[in-house]
Amino acid sequence: MPVDTGLATTLLDMAEKLNQEDPLASLLDEFLLPDELIYLDGNSLGPLSKRAKVRALEVVEQQWGNGLIGSWNSYDWINLPKTVGNKIARLTGADPDSVICCDSISVNLFKLLSAGLLLSNQKSPNSETSNPSRSIVLSQKDNFPTDLYMVQGLQQLMNSVSHTPCELMTVASDKIVDAIEQHGQRIAVLMLTHVNFRNGDIHDMQSLTSLAHEKGILVLWDLAHSAGVLPVKLDECDVDFAVGCTYKYLNGGPGAPGFAYVAPRLLGQLSQPLSGWMGHKSPFDFAHDYQKSEGIEQLLCGTPSIISMSILDAALDIFDEVNIFDLRDKSVALNGFFQSCVEQLTASFPASDDPLTLACNVDASMRGSQISYRHKQAYAICQALINEGVISDFRAPDILRIGFSPLFLSFTDMLKAAQILTKIMHTKLYTQPQFHIKNAVT
Amino acid sequence: MPVDTGLATTLLDMAEKLNQEDPLASLLDEFLLPDELIYLDGNSLGPLSKRAKVRALEVVEQQWGNGLIGSWNSYDWINLPKTVGNKIARLTGADPDSVICCDSISVNLFKLLSAGLLLSNQKSPNSETSNPSRSIVLSQKDNFPTDLYMVQGLQQLMNSVSHTPCELMTVASDKIVDAIEQHGQRIAVLMLTHVNFRNGDIHDMQSLTSLAHEKGILVLWDLAHSAGVLPVKLDECDVDFAVGCTYKYLNGGPGAPGFAYVAPRLLGQLSQPLSGWMGHKSPFDFAHDYQKSEGIEQLLCGTPSIISMSILDAALDIFDEVNIFDLRDKSVALNGFFQSCVEQLTASFPASDDPLTLACNVDASMRGSQISYRHKQAYAICQALINEGVISDFRAPDILRIGFSPLFLSFTDMLKAAQILTKIMHTKLYTQPQFHIKNAVT
Repeated sequence: MPVDTGLATTLLDMAEKLNQEDPLASLLDEFLLPDELIYLDGNSLGPLSKRAKVRALEVVEQQWGNGLIGSWNSYDWINLPKTVGNKIARLTGADPDSVICCDSISVNLFKLLSAGLLLSNQKSPNSETSNPSRSIVLSQKDNFPTDLYMVQGLQQLMNSVSHTPCELMTVASDKIVDAIEQHGQRIAVLMLTHVNFRNGDIHDMQSLTSLAHEKGILVLWDLAHSAGVLPVKLDECDVDFAVGCTYKYLNGGPGAPGFAYVAPRLLGQLSQPLSGWMGHKSPFDFAHDYQKSEGIEQLLCGTPSIISMSILDAALDIFDEVNIFDLRDKSVALNGFFQSCVEQLTASFPASDDPLTLACNVDASMRGSQISYRHKQAYAICQALINEGVISDFRAPDILRIGFSPLFLSFTDMLKAAQILTKIMHTKLYTQPQFHIKNAVT
Repeated sequence: MPVDTGLATTLLDMAEKLNQEDPLASLLDEFLLPDELIYLDGNSLGPLSKRAKVRALEVVEQQWGNGLIGSWNSYDWINLPKTVGNKIARLTGADPDSVICCDSISVNLFKLLSAGLLLSNQKSPNSETSNPSRSIVLSQKDNFPTDLYMVQGLQQLMNSVSHTPCELMTVASDKIVDAIEQHGQRIAVLMLTHVNFRNGDIHDMQSLTSLAHEKGILVLWDLAHSAGVLPVKLDECDVDFAVGCTYKYLNGGPGAPGFAYVAPRLLGQLSQPLSGWMGHKSPFDFAHDYQKSEGIEQLLCGTPSIISMSILDAALDIFDEVNIFDLRDKSVALNGFFQSCVEQLTASFPASDDPLTLACNVDASMRGSQISYRHKQAYAICQALINEGVISDFRAPDILRIGFSPLFLSFTDMLKAAQILTKIMHTKLYTQPQFHIKNAVT
């Protein structure tokens, strides 16, 4: 059955018109993507930009190779975690000097969860145990697993010496408000991911933070799927803590370091257990006792990953040339146009007995910068897409996830990807055995 | 006062003869050091090697730039922490699959210190508190500060919910055996750095591990100043835990990731609190509950720093071409020759009223790959050396530290550096004001 050529022409005209009207179109040239590839996985690993490539050469050859140990001073490596942190602060509506780049999301979660529990509970100096009144970390059942795992690790450590000073409670997304109302006095930290990794659902940061604060709960937001693509207003929402990664929409490279935010009002009283030498107020005094830095540097632990962080530093400069609202507008437009193309093209074929079903909010403006479809053969469909040059990803057990990074995608990319996806679904190409071979990373 | 030209000629002849007899001489060409620089700070930051530079380009342009997300499979990024770990295992006398590359020394210390405390104490299921019988982490007062700080952080976290489940005890180096004898039953973990960062003192890994085990104490060694330059026999010494960094003698680049070792006999029962998704037995199942990997991967936490780790992976290949005993022999020979040159050249000048004094064992074979001098003006002397192209470092309050990386130094480098140092001391060049300006990193 041939595709409706009239429809194809109409959609192509629309895509080209949207490209022409795109204020961010010139940025596509900043990225080094392979020809003929449509990369819809920038929400998993952002691509290499020209400026990141230039910096990679410079930090390795010039800064490390020629500058050697002196580059800690001459290239200001020592302040790189804060330099990069300040660039991320601008993107997340945070005060200057309230974000630091370091370690991974997981490690940073441990620091802030511990700090939150310590802040929420004051130990009575004379009692054998503190029986903390606030022991619960409340989260969403479908949060990204590492967030839950880090609470479980902290829980096991702390519960080894006392009964339940830390307890993970997870509830469905639509039960979070109820749980806050019901257990508020026992909750130390509300930990949520702003945009859900599977279905792209967006939590209301303002109202949830505000509700939690009414109950005396500290709030920690994971910005993995929002930093660099959604407007985030950490300061305006009065958020206590946040973490995020930099290898998705911030295009920092594979395993680029994470970041952590602490509201300036909390820095003075904060205490976090990963108190490595780089968080010391005077690391080069080599003193016997830890004394935390007064600023956001107190979140630092070991020696920072300079090469990766320097590449990220360069990658972030592209955000100086755009504003986050334009990025969000384009992300929603790409997302909606792709969805519409898929729907129209699907309708031009006879009805399928094995269709994709939408696994996210039907309105592109109500979800993060992604669309998710559910299908029993989602893994094989994803592999068939990759085989045709459309890179997307699979999330167990049955989700096909497609991401829209507004910095380097065009509307014609959306149309081509939708054509390939609908062709794969119509021909059932995904039933071929080669698309069922499992990779280590899915 | 002119330098004794007869002595200079004699020493140069010796240096050239030692160069000719050096079985590792050909490796000097593997490193990209600036001309005319004598780099005696490889014990702080190792230099760039040709193969590391080639890999840096490849991992950025080819693997990330072209391979994008697919490189997790096609370049086996997912197994890189173990691939690199196995290379480090060969260098430290560890069993295959017992070393993993990840995070920083500081973060890895936290994992293993926590695991050690948990292993040492079984909580009674019915009691409110466990009153653990083994709460002490014993270390050396002059251990590298981050090691002590990480215990202090863990102590503060755990003591917030119970009295003293964790307690740092530090003693002078020569009191460690006494402390083990006296407090053995209360000690959970003996944590020592194999080679002291300030004076290069080497602990006897075999006898201290053995003594601690007699008392039921777990032993954790920090190999920051020994991995890649001293023979280490983790397996033969029956060590329980070890950590190390890779940016010193392993030449992995600034802030390259650390490593962690766990004796295979302990992996089954081990529990560590930084239980991020990469340590899960099936990370891509995205399950709600953490289940640790059975292997050394259980030490992983967040997404690994791929670019830095890949560069390290390439840098480590140089160790395939040498054996650690030849490296140690050359390190001792460089160290002793430098010391001898300094002593003979100093003696050729009139006695100084402000001399350097040795701050380490007088016998090069009894110290790590460094020599340390004490002087009130050590900072300025170090700056004057750097100004003359001899890179060394200062360690507060009064230590001039000079490191001998046997992979890329020659004996003529030793002579030249000794000539420059003795000239600076004789002329008191270090009294000039420009050498007293403090840098952020010293």
